[in-house]
Amino acid sequence: MLNKKIKIAIAGIGTVGKGLIDLLSKYKNKEIKIEITAIASRKKQEFKGKIFNKTVFFNDAQKLLKFHNYDILVELIGGEKGVSKDIVFNALREKKNVVTANKALVSKFWNQLHTLMNKNNCSLKYEAAVAGGIPIIKVVDEFLVSNKITKIYGILNGTSNYILSNMLSHKKEFESILIEAQKLGYAESDPRFDIDGTDTAHKLSILSSLAFGCYNISLRIENEGIENVDLQDLQIADSLGYKIKLLGLTELKNKNIKNFVYPCLVSKDSFIAKVDGVYNGIVVESNFCKKSCFVGEGAGARPTATSVLSDIISLSTRRNNSCRKSSKFHYEETSLQSRFGSYYLRFTTYDKPGVISGIANQFKTFNISMKSMLQKEIKVGNPNDATIVITTHDCLEKNMMRALKEINKLNFIRKKTVYFRIENFK
Amino acid sequence: MLNKKIKIAIAGIGTVGKGLIDLLSKYKNKEIKIEITAIASRKKQEFKGKIFNKTVFFNDAQKLLKFHNYDILVELIGGEKGVSKDIVFNALREKKNVVTANKALVSKFWNQLHTLMNKNNCSLKYEAAVAGGIPIIKVVDEFLVSNKITKIYGILNGTSNYILSNMLSHKKEFESILIEAQKLGYAESDPRFDIDGTDTAHKLSILSSLAFGCYNISLRIENEGIENVDLQDLQIADSLGYKIKLLGLTELKNKNIKNFVYPCLVSKDSFIAKVDGVYNGIVVESNFCKKSCFVGEGAGARPTATSVLSDIISLSTRRNNSCRKSSKFHYEETSLQSRFGSYYLRFTTYDKPGVISGIANQFKTFNISMKSMLQKEIKVGNPNDATIVITTHDCLEKNMMRALKEINKLNFIRKKTVYFRIENFK
Repeated sequence: MLNKKIKIAIAGIGTVGKGLIDLLSKYKNKEIKIEITAIASRKKQEFKGKIFNKTVFFNDAQKLLKFHNYDILVELIGGEKGVSKDIVFNALREKKNVVTANKALVSKFWNQLHTLMNKNNCSLKYEAAVAGGIPIIKVVDEFLVSNKITKIYGILNGTSNYILSNMLSHKKEFESILIEAQKLGYAESDPRFDIDGTDTAHKLSILSSLAFGCYNISLRIENEGIENVDLQDLQIADSLGYKIKLLGLTELKNKNIKNFVYPCLVSKDSFIAKVDGVYNGIVVESNFCKKSCFVGEGAGARPTATSVLSDIISLSTRRNNSCRKSSKFHYEETSLQSRFGSYYLRFTTYDKPGVISGIANQFKTFNISMKSMLQKEIKVGNPNDATIVITTHDCLEKNMMRALKEINKLNFIRKKTVYFRIENFK
Repeated sequence: MLNKKIKIAIAGIGTVGKGLIDLLSKYKNKEIKIEITAIASRKKQEFKGKIFNKTVFFNDAQKLLKFHNYDILVELIGGEKGVSKDIVFNALREKKNVVTANKALVSKFWNQLHTLMNKNNCSLKYEAAVAGGIPIIKVVDEFLVSNKITKIYGILNGTSNYILSNMLSHKKEFESILIEAQKLGYAESDPRFDIDGTDTAHKLSILSSLAFGCYNISLRIENEGIENVDLQDLQIADSLGYKIKLLGLTELKNKNIKNFVYPCLVSKDSFIAKVDGVYNGIVVESNFCKKSCFVGEGAGARPTATSVLSDIISLSTRRNNSCRKSSKFHYEETSLQSRFGSYYLRFTTYDKPGVISGIANQFKTFNISMKSMLQKEIKVGNPNDATIVITTHDCLEKNMMRALKEINKLNFIRKKTVYFRIENFK
């Protein structure tokens, strides 16, 4: 029998904080008693119930800097600077353990946080920062501890996945689905980071750092978002056997790390294409377990609170920080320019002779080979326009970008050409 | 820095044992050094390499009963009785930790094993016993520690999933795919337990015991296997929008536990239907995380060895046995007779008037309502026979069995009616 009492101080009572209090009030374990010694919440809220019997309340998280009666700081404020950063670093400096859901902070200060906790022999845990309802940190850190991970990819943002799934199923454009998502609470009032890929990049950076034991790569992830995905692209991709998903991917090959975040076409048969709505889906490839796949709710109060509480309990029963060894290798990050893969291109042109040959000539110049071509009757916009969709065989991104630059200058091109990368997962 | 040395004694060097040695020889961690102090292997094998520098070799695992120079016993012999049982219980009595892949032993002696480890404050870990490459024990025990689990279901046996998937895709009958699977190493020379559902029942029993904290239910799981699944049933199910999968399911509702193992029809749109080949797939439903899904290789040397090593490392860094609280509630197990659900039925009849009305009359008597009916032209066997396929709305299993008994007596019935249950997962 363990018979342990853990004192926690919670900073920030927003969605996740409320979920955690809900979960804590239901959680009963004779061996591990969790006591909330402090709550810092800017908004005035009522806290009722037995679990607050010994709680001190602060209206400003800064006050936690001078509060010491806790074993674990639970930081649920968010943001890479300001008070959340102050209290997390302060706790680690005081050799306390920290549990956080703050992906911006953990991804940006990965190196400093790990240096500090190794020095002070304390822990920071962040299961809730990546894919709330999927225990992906635990899987990479503990289950695959002995495996060499070669690649992790997936859908890491529920909001954008909800939007893409529902644009296609409801046949509506981006804006109107975004408004729906906001009404339903699936998108925040300021959904910028969810939509432009920043949120995915933060999570990917954490996964990449953990899996490959490398430092300071967070700021170099190039991310593209879903703002420019049109309903017609989703529909054309569908007719070609693909779905469009906002993916994050990190891959290690010969000491080169490839990281990307962009919307891309994936075959409908692939595991990742089957993850729809607000769900997240992650695939991990490793030397001994080949392919492991995980699907769960990516965000929301309850799954994220589950992750937070799992970390709290884990800290109260474990001796060490992390199972996965960290390395201080310096990896090279490969840029998108060197991507070798296939593309989906949608051209809007005047409907006149010479268009195909004009495009084909540029393809030839830049060593790009077509795989399929489809001319669509246009239903919106100018009736004299034509829509031409081309998919290519594998080619170098650098060449594709140069070809598109030239093609966009041609006099029959009516609008800037739309392109998406195609990822062929087995 | 942890700087820990763990001594392990390995019993049994078959497929998994070899995988573990392979993995150990590649695994490097400065903080945790794993030393193999003993290996017991009946077969004469050569063990070369630095990791065996301090190893004592035994040709009989019984000799481990008198060997004490280890922290963790790694039992990879298998089987619910004999030497594997002796050395596991002996180790726990001596307050040593145990890691095992032995599903038969863990499921059968769940109660005794847990009583002993609680008494002696030592641990038995068994991640490798259930779905090798999926960390489902860790997920249920640690990640979902605070959640109330309501249901776990999935494909827990890779051999039978390989056979069902390949029968359909290669249009071949059970026997010929089984022979192929044996050649490829996906089925053992004696595949009985994989095929008749026993292996799935063992794993399900462990999941059920862990998730619901209950005891001694292993022997009461009713299991049916895939021996009687015909190619034509797979094909007809396919045309109706279903796949046939060997499923294990455990569900807790109002203190009643429902456990079953049988082949059944699942909608092609369901998550579980998309898990093909040797892969395992598991869905966990819980109060805070709703639905979490996991896919990975279910067996084989390397994924299973990954589970074993994850357990070894976890034992060397943790303080306690299990996170999930155990309860000693006595749950009632509901029998299959009380199942309320829908059915797929395939009748082989003489092709003559009165057949449909004969069947329909019995349905009426037993309060069963048809959902769809399809009469197939028969291509094999007697050209005067007809094949009639019916799916039903939800009804009581007891009624269905009584109706089928009466129908099978009717004079136009040529062969015993084939039935499968239909499971409607959202």
